[in-house]
Amino acid sequence: MGSNLYLGLVHHPIYDRRREIVATAVTNFDIHDIARCARTFGLGGFYMITPLESQVQLVNRVVHHWVEGYGSIYNPTRKESLSLVRVSRSIEETDREISNLWGKKVRRIATAATPHPKNISFATFRKLLEDKETPFLMLFGTGWGLVQKVKDGSDYVLDPIKGVGYNHLSVRSAVAIILDRLLGDRMIDSE
Amino acid sequence: MGSNLYLGLVHHPIYDRRREIVATAVTNFDIHDIARCARTFGLGGFYMITPLESQVQLVNRVVHHWVEGYGSIYNPTRKESLSLVRVSRSIEETDREISNLWGKKVRRIATAATPHPKNISFATFRKLLEDKETPFLMLFGTGWGLVQKVKDGSDYVLDPIKGVGYNHLSVRSAVAIILDRLLGDRMIDSE
Repeated sequence: MGSNLYLGLVHHPIYDRRREIVATAVTNFDIHDIARCARTFGLGGFYMITPLESQVQLVNRVVHHWVEGYGSIYNPTRKESLSLVRVSRSIEETDREISNLWGKKVRRIATAATPHPKNISFATFRKLLEDKETPFLMLFGTGWGLVQKVKDGSDYVLDPIKGVGYNHLSVRSAVAIILDRLLGDRMIDSE
Repeated sequence: MGSNLYLGLVHHPIYDRRREIVATAVTNFDIHDIARCARTFGLGGFYMITPLESQVQLVNRVVHHWVEGYGSIYNPTRKESLSLVRVSRSIEETDREISNLWGKKVRRIATAATPHPKNISFATFRKLLEDKETPFLMLFGTGWGLVQKVKDGSDYVLDPIKGVGYNHLSVRSAVAIILDRLLGDRMIDSE
């Protein structure tokens, strides 16, 4: 269940608050919170995407601590979740890695807090995910979000989460909500 | 919508990893991520519950920075969310404050990662929340979760989020998912 879905957290190219294209720093809370969600909902993997060598090494150090180092004894549940974390230098590299693994082109879906012409609903994407022979890479932006070109170049863009006149969730909260809507126990609605 | 629902993040009494009862330190990411969720889903307020004076002051300092200080100019959307944050010394004090505000006893609901005899489903709680004349306080535990006494002493305990053989979400992710299930746009299922 859900193992044909991969998540990519993009640190470049994304916008900053002035809509300039930048590379953001890796956040430790992103690694842990999102890896735990990925494990909870049974994803195929969680890619931290950053072109910065210092950040690549930082992620590798954190993952090593929890998967093979002292952390794996201190808290084995973190080992389970952090085992899903991979590091990649670019969206294209992530794409290639998953496509090679599956021997099939990966379908790419972007997420955003605002509408996009390529928007598909949560129900539609749930349906697409039922095709277990096809891998999907779902991209989330850090900072002020994925750049337009990444959204335009994706196969799909997922509908935004609608708040009560407020659409400024943290990327960690957005990931949690979106994975639950796609893969969570739908029994909650059948009572 | 949702304004009769309040959220309390409990830093004492909660369990640590050895099941000893402790007071945890406040986490900056909890304040921001949960306040942004609270604003997104239109909650009545978000209480940081801690008996430690140093932690009370820390929360007040963070909230002041974003609501009245430089942060309110730097990022006005944080002002909107952080305005919902209150600090309280205990669950009982939180209870009293909301009950006084409403002139009516607040109903208390605990959350947990494991089942409890007082469990109610998400659908049942959504139904209860439709009674807009009654305030509800939903409690989340930090550390290794709310102590047994707090769960036993609540009016209800909400069903756990079921993962694929893994129930170790961060409290931030759990809050996001639970608020979405209770107050999120249910249209996602009608297509």
